[in-house]
Amino acid sequence: MPGSNFGTLFHISTFGESHGPALGVVIDGCPAGLALTEEDIIPYMNRRRPGQSQYTTARSESDTPEILSGTFNGVTTGAPIAILIRNTDQRSKDYSEIADIFRPGHADFTFFEKYGIRDYRGGGRSSARETAARVAAGAVAAKLLREFNIEAIAFTKSISDITVDDKFLDPMENRVRRDDVLKSPVFMPDSAAGERACAFLDKKREELDSTGGVVRIHVTGLPAGLGDTVFEKLDARLAGALMSIGAVKGVTIGDGFSVSLSTGSLDNDSFYADDDLNIHTTSNHGGGILGGMSTGCMIIAEAAFKPTPSIAKEQETVDKAGISRKISIKGRHDPTVVPRAVVVCECMVNLVIADALLTNATARLDNLHKIYRR
Amino acid sequence: MPGSNFGTLFHISTFGESHGPALGVVIDGCPAGLALTEEDIIPYMNRRRPGQSQYTTARSESDTPEILSGTFNGVTTGAPIAILIRNTDQRSKDYSEIADIFRPGHADFTFFEKYGIRDYRGGGRSSARETAARVAAGAVAAKLLREFNIEAIAFTKSISDITVDDKFLDPMENRVRRDDVLKSPVFMPDSAAGERACAFLDKKREELDSTGGVVRIHVTGLPAGLGDTVFEKLDARLAGALMSIGAVKGVTIGDGFSVSLSTGSLDNDSFYADDDLNIHTTSNHGGGILGGMSTGCMIIAEAAFKPTPSIAKEQETVDKAGISRKISIKGRHDPTVVPRAVVVCECMVNLVIADALLTNATARLDNLHKIYRR
Amino acid sequence: MPGSNFGTLFHISTFGESHGPALGVVIDGCPAGLALTEEDIIPYMNRRRPGQSQYTTARSESDTPEILSGTFNGVTTGAPIAILIRNTDQRSKDYSEIADIFRPGHADFTFFEKYGIRDYRGGGRSSARETAARVAAGAVAAKLLREFNIEAIAFTKSISDITVDDKFLDPMENRVRRDDVLKSPVFMPDSAAGERACAFLDKKREELDSTGGVVRIHVTGLPAGLGDTVFEKLDARLAGALMSIGAVKGVTIGDGFSVSLSTGSLDNDSFYADDDLNIHTTSNHGGGILGGMSTGCMIIAEAAFKPTPSIAKEQETVDKAGISRKISIKGRHDPTVVPRAVVVCECMVNLVIADALLTNATARLDNLHKIYRR
Amino acid sequence: MPGSNFGTLFHISTFGESHGPALGVVIDGCPAGLALTEEDIIPYMNRRRPGQSQYTTARSESDTPEILSGTFNGVTTGAPIAILIRNTDQRSKDYSEIADIFRPGHADFTFFEKYGIRDYRGGGRSSARETAARVAAGAVAAKLLREFNIEAIAFTKSISDITVDDKFLDPMENRVRRDDVLKSPVFMPDSAAGERACAFLDKKREELDSTGGVVRIHVTGLPAGLGDTVFEKLDARLAGALMSIGAVKGVTIGDGFSVSLSTGSLDNDSFYADDDLNIHTTSNHGGGILGGMSTGCMIIAEAAFKPTPSIAKEQETVDKAGISRKISIKGRHDPTVVPRAVVVCECMVNLVIADALLTNATARLDNLHKIYRR
Repeated sequence: MPGSNFGTLFHISTFGESHGPALGVVIDGCPAGLALTEEDIIPYMNRRRPGQSQYTTARSESDTPEILSGTFNGVTTGAPIAILIRNTDQRSKDYSEIADIFRPGHADFTFFEKYGIRDYRGGGRSSARETAARVAAGAVAAKLLREFNIEAIAFTKSISDITVDDKFLDPMENRVRRDDVLKSPVFMPDSAAGERACAFLDKKREELDSTGGVVRIHVTGLPAGLGDTVFEKLDARLAGALMSIGAVKGVTIGDGFSVSLSTGSLDNDSFYADDDLNIHTTSNHGGGILGGMSTGCMIIAEAAFKPTPSIAKEQETVDKAGISRKISIKGRHDPTVVPRAVVVCECMVNLVIADALLTNATARLDNLHKIYRR
Repeated sequence: MPGSNFGTLFHISTFGESHGPALGVVIDGCPAGLALTEEDIIPYMNRRRPGQSQYTTARSESDTPEILSGTFNGVTTGAPIAILIRNTDQRSKDYSEIADIFRPGHADFTFFEKYGIRDYRGGGRSSARETAARVAAGAVAAKLLREFNIEAIAFTKSISDITVDDKFLDPMENRVRRDDVLKSPVFMPDSAAGERACAFLDKKREELDSTGGVVRIHVTGLPAGLGDTVFEKLDARLAGALMSIGAVKGVTIGDGFSVSLSTGSLDNDSFYADDDLNIHTTSNHGGGILGGMSTGCMIIAEAAFKPTPSIAKEQETVDKAGISRKISIKGRHDPTVVPRAVVVCECMVNLVIADALLTNATARLDNLHKIYRR
Repeated sequence: MPGSNFGTLFHISTFGESHGPALGVVIDGCPAGLALTEEDIIPYMNRRRPGQSQYTTARSESDTPEILSGTFNGVTTGAPIAILIRNTDQRSKDYSEIADIFRPGHADFTFFEKYGIRDYRGGGRSSARETAARVAAGAVAAKLLREFNIEAIAFTKSISDITVDDKFLDPMENRVRRDDVLKSPVFMPDSAAGERACAFLDKKREELDSTGGVVRIHVTGLPAGLGDTVFEKLDARLAGALMSIGAVKGVTIGDGFSVSLSTGSLDNDSFYADDDLNIHTTSNHGGGILGGMSTGCMIIAEAAFKPTPSIAKEQETVDKAGISRKISIKGRHDPTVVPRAVVVCECMVNLVIADALLTNATARLDNLHKIYRR
Repeated sequence: MPGSNFGTLFHISTFGESHGPALGVVIDGCPAGLALTEEDIIPYMNRRRPGQSQYTTARSESDTPEILSGTFNGVTTGAPIAILIRNTDQRSKDYSEIADIFRPGHADFTFFEKYGIRDYRGGGRSSARETAARVAAGAVAAKLLREFNIEAIAFTKSISDITVDDKFLDPMENRVRRDDVLKSPVFMPDSAAGERACAFLDKKREELDSTGGVVRIHVTGLPAGLGDTVFEKLDARLAGALMSIGAVKGVTIGDGFSVSLSTGSLDNDSFYADDDLNIHTTSNHGGGILGGMSTGCMIIAEAAFKPTPSIAKEQETVDKAGISRKISIKGRHDPTVVPRAVVVCECMVNLVIADALLTNATARLDNLHKIYRR
């Protein structure tokens, strides 16, 4: 499938450039009968919106989603759900200065190499603004998952080397409260760490520089056996989904890279049965996924973000003609992309899980017999 | 797509269980006109084959691939290429002991939960033997890539905390020689580190335990601009492909998780032009990918493998009825999956790059004019 | 893929209901570098628009397409092209009368059975208004094809038993002029037949009834060898595309059903070479397709449309509760869907051919060498 | 997807040339828990096999399918089901005479134009032998459909102008018995017509010529609402599937092309409710499909086949160099492809319906609640 399509059964197709008239998404495959209005989407849009705090860019985008199709009387009909987000802040700036320059750490060069043409207004399709459409779609997926008591919650695990307290990282139990995350200006559930992170970000901004961080996602409520095998393993889908977010350079499930230092006897999660003979694991090194399918334990994923490439500090680069140029990115830019990326990570996870939920419905003959019974 | 399908234009569909009659793959979309025989595939199969050294399992599998279709007089015709690998070592063992038990760290439980039925002979579809089909397909992709001087080479970066020398990890120049990798029993290009790793593996085996490690892949020869945007970014595809290999719990591109600790001024790779006005970067923190597309620099990816879950040490678990059981996995098992996984990683990368190469051909109108000229 | 998605490389995703806020399409995969503005789309929209003549419904829809993304300075950038068409005539009517009734010949019943919910305002997603999005996408495909001198032209072959003159049906040479088609109120290139058809339609309207007809499509300029094999044959794709238009009950290629009465010696199209040794066929019973690929001869396809199901005449039916009801469809309805469907057929053919054109680019290794030459 | 792939959830990937080592299919997405052995497939293979009667070619192909994967103890496990059919009659013939000649009515020319290379042994991938893999897959789909009392039955409606009695074409009730079809040498349920057809075929063979015919398919037992909307309508999928069979030049649903001559008041199928308030139609002009979804009435489709292109009569053609050549196809060829194509049509319909059955399972939120109930 072309690059702006995602998902097999809960399928989305996104569009829109940073400074074009609008962005949006078409969701095809959302089951009929789900209550859905713009009110379900707006809170997610707000979490992604810049200008939410002093640590995110001040460019004002109202990001009001409009549902154009697929619902009737506030309920999904099975028809494609199109969601439109108009760009309200696209005044005609003078981009002539950067039109021919390849900004370091940005996709200007690679877009030009691939397509031979480039929409240089604010990065065009390569702008982080593209993720607004992902968030709108992920909010719909979240609404669907809630029907089955499945919930993903993403939060900032670290900004540079400032990391939340270990208790929020317990793999056996989700100790992260959504409210705590949402009230933090950097979306850290740990307010003390959050304050240190804010101070660090202030310092980076003063230095005209930027920093990276790690987003962590917990998913609770999944039944065991969700996901697919071989190439469409749940962890493979999550890894692809998270790595598709601009600035992500690493993705892990469960214990991640530290498994390479462990031993089988330590890393294997043992099974036990509770009093109702339901089967669980005594530990969760695997991050809730085994053989590509959910174990029933909490799913844990992490994504590492590189520092914001747009910095005010002067950098060396070249233009289209190969001439050396110096550039210092003007305007107010986030000293880190992490806070705004938190909801994007959560939404990508929602999309993957929703797709897996639909797909799994047809994995067993007895499931079909439940639906097509006579 | 169902889980055993992969790729858009260079599409593969794999099949086969550990102890069924055969495994194999159908490649649909390989361009016509490529010289191809079994001789191109066998060396790749041999690298994955168990029993290659004392650090891989002794179960004998000849793994001889048979091309069933898609070539004529040693050249691809554009028709699907089916490759069959018969299982030669599938004597009827007594599996009754493990038929009802869920092995820790294995997919027995999740397969049973998803499908309600499980082929327990050697793990069935969840066996690492499944990767034989990936390797056969990846060998064909490698042959295609060689036409364009593109080459992926994978190697063992580390086993537990034993890591190859830094010179092999230079992001600006590939210092890893295929010969050095292939002559190492653990596929490390650094023979000194390789020896230490072997000693460590001997120790783990004596302890009836196992260990993990990291595989690293370098891709050279790519033109800039290869890959797609948004969801099908080259790094997203690589992450999904590598994470789909059993036992992988983390994937990185370029500097990986350490970017979260860096700053924009350090992490951004600056552009410069050479004397021919070709554009390059002065560093390669990004691992050869920017905005989801290749920069022309070497692509660098890593995958972290958990310790082999099959260990001789006694472990706690349960059976289907929820009854507590003790299990010590019999037979000769690898103390680490890493060496055999090296070629699997390389082949998954080949498949992703081949698909991207085909897809990119249609990204520009002027490309089409080159083909459909009058 | 879910039902509103179409195409592999030239991929579209449509949305919108008859009386919702808007319809539209996202095109993902259109090559970069194609000149494209709304002016390329409007003429196609106008051909589909109702109220064009007395033989099409008077409901006024301005159908002005707005390109929301994917172009920059009037040229495609390779990013998804979203096209929006606002519904301007969606005043709140009283639908309570038909909300619970299943109209004969309409999809009311089947939508309700599949989804358990139904947007009854004007048929919702099942309305012919859905085809506006197809036409917008097909206009873009037409612009792409024109780059390669490929052109599809659709026209009304017959309305009921009134058929255009045989000269317009010559399989060896396209004698249909676009101008002649466009100036006819029923889109027949034969003005005499067109007049008879108009008289017949007047009669049907007076009888409060409707009629069917046949649309024929000619495609010229195709190189030989375009299309795919087995399931994605060019004729298979065309048949699926045309049959997906509401009210189509039959599709043919070339001589169609009459081949069942022919003989091999008559039906086989013989090959010959011209003075430049280019190979052609002496006849074109096959409609320009052989083994699923283009022969270089004109492609000929036909689609049979059933009579408009919305008729003023009283009909028997039932409501959701199974109670017998009588219904006579109010409002002004076309006595035939054929004239408005002509451009829809043409656009579906454009979409299929554009997709095949992109796909074929990667069928041969030497094509890739033309693109990735060093 | 590349051309040898078909289906979204019940996905197949076929391979194999006429004179290569083997043909086969990989089915990915068949639900776990279905009883399946080779015995379920063999009867379907036998119906397609040549040499079944004097009206089909004598080339002996045992066509014994071997299930290589995806079942365990005779039950599907959810893993891909690979089915292999070895070519047993591939003695090395001398093909040098036809290696450079383009046979009229065959895909030799178009394959060569697309791929620049051609497996000329018996037509290679373009041989009707390719359909053996479709039949093996369709037999598995049939087994799945039987679980839900859904059955497709295909039969020869006509050979040239010899047509079965009208009673077998009743659209409201399936009067075609499988036994009657199978015992006829031309698979006509009407033995009198069958005898006339046989005599006609004898005559054509004596004339060194061939003839065409029409295959009709009835599907019974479908619930209402099966199928999808817009591009993936059930009739669109059926049309694409049937047109993808070599030699098919026309496809219809229900009344087919005759609807173009009808009126709305005659063509609309009226709804009524039975004593249990289940809703039905009083007629079935629509062939069991309305708006792309099943009405619950019998589904009726037809496919028109052109005469066998391989005829002993001398024909004019050219070779690769453009030199005029005369050709008379040697060997024993069917005077019509229709009888052997009957089971192929049935199997393609089975594949489409099975895919729709799986897809529909996820169309409604309440379906998912039936599966994921707590």
